[in-house]
Amino acid sequence: MSIPPEFDESPKFPRGFRCASRNVGLKPSARDLTLFASEVEASAAAVFTRNHFPGAPVIVGRETLRGGRLRAIIANSKVSNVATGLAGVEHARRMARAAAAELGTTPDQVLVSSTGVIGVPLPIDKIERGVVGMAADLQDDPMVGAEGIMTTDSHPKALSARVGEATITWVAKGSGMIEPNMATMLAYIFTDAAFDAPTLDRLLRAAVTCSFNTLSVDTDTSTSDTCAILANGLAGPVDEREFLRVLKAGCVRMTEILARDGEGATRLIRVHVRGALDTREAHVIAKSIVNSPLVKTMVHGADPNVGRLLMAIGKCFNCTVHPLSTDAWINGFQVVRTGERLAFDDAVVRETLSRDVVDLDVSLGVGDGEARAYGCDLTKGYIEENAAYYSS
Amino acid sequence: MSIPPEFDESPKFPRGFRCASRNVGLKPSARDLTLFASEVEASAAAVFTRNHFPGAPVIVGRETLRGGRLRAIIANSKVSNVATGLAGVEHARRMARAAAAELGTTPDQVLVSSTGVIGVPLPIDKIERGVVGMAADLQDDPMVGAEGIMTTDSHPKALSARVGEATITWVAKGSGMIEPNMATMLAYIFTDAAFDAPTLDRLLRAAVTCSFNTLSVDTDTSTSDTCAILANGLAGPVDEREFLRVLKAGCVRMTEILARDGEGATRLIRVHVRGALDTREAHVIAKSIVNSPLVKTMVHGADPNVGRLLMAIGKCFNCTVHPLSTDAWINGFQVVRTGERLAFDDAVVRETLSRDVVDLDVSLGVGDGEARAYGCDLTKGYIEENAAYYSS
Repeated sequence: MSIPPEFDESPKFPRGFRCASRNVGLKPSARDLTLFASEVEASAAAVFTRNHFPGAPVIVGRETLRGGRLRAIIANSKVSNVATGLAGVEHARRMARAAAAELGTTPDQVLVSSTGVIGVPLPIDKIERGVVGMAADLQDDPMVGAEGIMTTDSHPKALSARVGEATITWVAKGSGMIEPNMATMLAYIFTDAAFDAPTLDRLLRAAVTCSFNTLSVDTDTSTSDTCAILANGLAGPVDEREFLRVLKAGCVRMTEILARDGEGATRLIRVHVRGALDTREAHVIAKSIVNSPLVKTMVHGADPNVGRLLMAIGKCFNCTVHPLSTDAWINGFQVVRTGERLAFDDAVVRETLSRDVVDLDVSLGVGDGEARAYGCDLTKGYIEENAAYYSS
Repeated sequence: MSIPPEFDESPKFPRGFRCASRNVGLKPSARDLTLFASEVEASAAAVFTRNHFPGAPVIVGRETLRGGRLRAIIANSKVSNVATGLAGVEHARRMARAAAAELGTTPDQVLVSSTGVIGVPLPIDKIERGVVGMAADLQDDPMVGAEGIMTTDSHPKALSARVGEATITWVAKGSGMIEPNMATMLAYIFTDAAFDAPTLDRLLRAAVTCSFNTLSVDTDTSTSDTCAILANGLAGPVDEREFLRVLKAGCVRMTEILARDGEGATRLIRVHVRGALDTREAHVIAKSIVNSPLVKTMVHGADPNVGRLLMAIGKCFNCTVHPLSTDAWINGFQVVRTGERLAFDDAVVRETLSRDVVDLDVSLGVGDGEARAYGCDLTKGYIEENAAYYSS
């Protein structure tokens, strides 16, 4: 085991990166338009949603990323520009042109993102007018950009870490419609380390697999998921293995931050499954536990109804499960042995389920497969936010 | 299209069936022990949960059903006798013996069911003492039995219909931990038609596939699901095709009743997917829609956020979906055409989403696959019931 990297949660940008955000009238008063810019061209890679109805920015973004080079990202919140047809695609292109004009670059070096309600026309005029003058606002604080991309997030999300002479900075948003499968809602990673685009792509995919792809707030996969990394090289080359280690760790930490801020969430749930037949089955079972509404409400209510863990494992019909070799722990306290609920003191389990972080560990005793999953409890807050998201 | 059968929602039993229920101290005062009995031996078939942690009554029930003959069912609510090891299996056998002694039959002709919290020892002494004298209480009203098997159900559930000279009566319970996949939580079907056990088994499986197996309240598959049918033959033989038609229709109607009474539910959601590549893909997409927390909360809030329908279709990564041939309707009102949200009057959609029954129809334009799914909205009531189920 190597030492985990130190994360700065009052993060700084790597050399050459800055951002700006402002209100351009999509939301009543909160910041709704954000620009991230690199002084110099950066190598770039990205992964996008696998949803069959990708938003217009994802359709355009896939084209843009083919070049492997980016100077900027422009992102708006409140309206996602999804299910908007050809007009939506043209709006996404106009957004890239507007940002390119403001920053003195070309549209093929600008990644576009939109997040918010699905199926509503993008108010492109407001965005085109609003972006004018933003170059002058560019500043060093990643939190300014993190704030501009928020939708139902309760706080802006950014962190940074060092790798040799280089810095990596993560900026993300996302709290509902989150079971990414390929990336999270919106996550941007900036570094001044030097990597070419194909290497960056490989490193990003490796990091996303063990982090954002293990996250589920509500089993619903967004039509806008985008995770992009920009490397402008201003810190020169760094050790690739060390870079990947820190990149992974930061993606996992950001995954935890997103899970804990899931819509309505009051607790972070971390599931660790060991002893599955293989990694795939471990992943299926970990996701089944983290997504079970009955496990999520058990955690929410700190109700020691631990039989629900067995239910959630047992409903993975196509996985190998032997009741007699199944054990489970909550925050290290054993609650199930050989498929039977132990006769524990309810008060102890109530106390541990009340903590801010709830670790659910399962050992299946079948093979060597291991996987983790990240999620949150299910609360009335989730219902409140989502029963009137369009209308509010 | 044949005429749908008429259901009697103040149902009667077929000839020769009766039931009784009472409180034996598992719950504070509500009825918690139920007996169903046939005057004569009945042919019988059943399907059980596919969960890897089946309850002790399911383990014993699979053995019992091998004989293909039943005289009685004994069922308790409050404690499910799941994850209770060998002691649990012995308790289930003692329950069958107690019922057999009371009714003057043998334990191999008694199906046992238990429903309620997982992982708590069954108070078998209370059940053995409590069943004594129940034979004298046996009566003609199926609702008496339906009441005895309730857990979080808000009302008892039974209905009946005629097939020629015979009657079919359905008695069921279930409102949470409901995505049966093989049967619903507990559903008992009684008929005085004459069928042998293998025929009954075939008819039951056909009926369950298009009804209970399309139901999901919360994606969580119970460890106790049991659906059994008893045919005592007292009405003689009936036309098999007609019997199957009515059997299917009654199972679908009972599925709707269970969905509408899902934990915390305020609306019944019925999804109909047409034009999928095949039946399997239609089923996957229908389940994805009916299970999406964001679709469920949209219905709950009558919020015209219909883009979520596309999200829920689009996240079926392994199904064939073409945005340009995808249309959708809510209660017959078209909201999506060729993958785009239509510019409809929000007030119209708000009104239709406020109805007690919400039909979501999707046409994929890909093939001939068709499927239905049944569920309910997601509300604060679900959270309330499940955050303290064990403790309350």
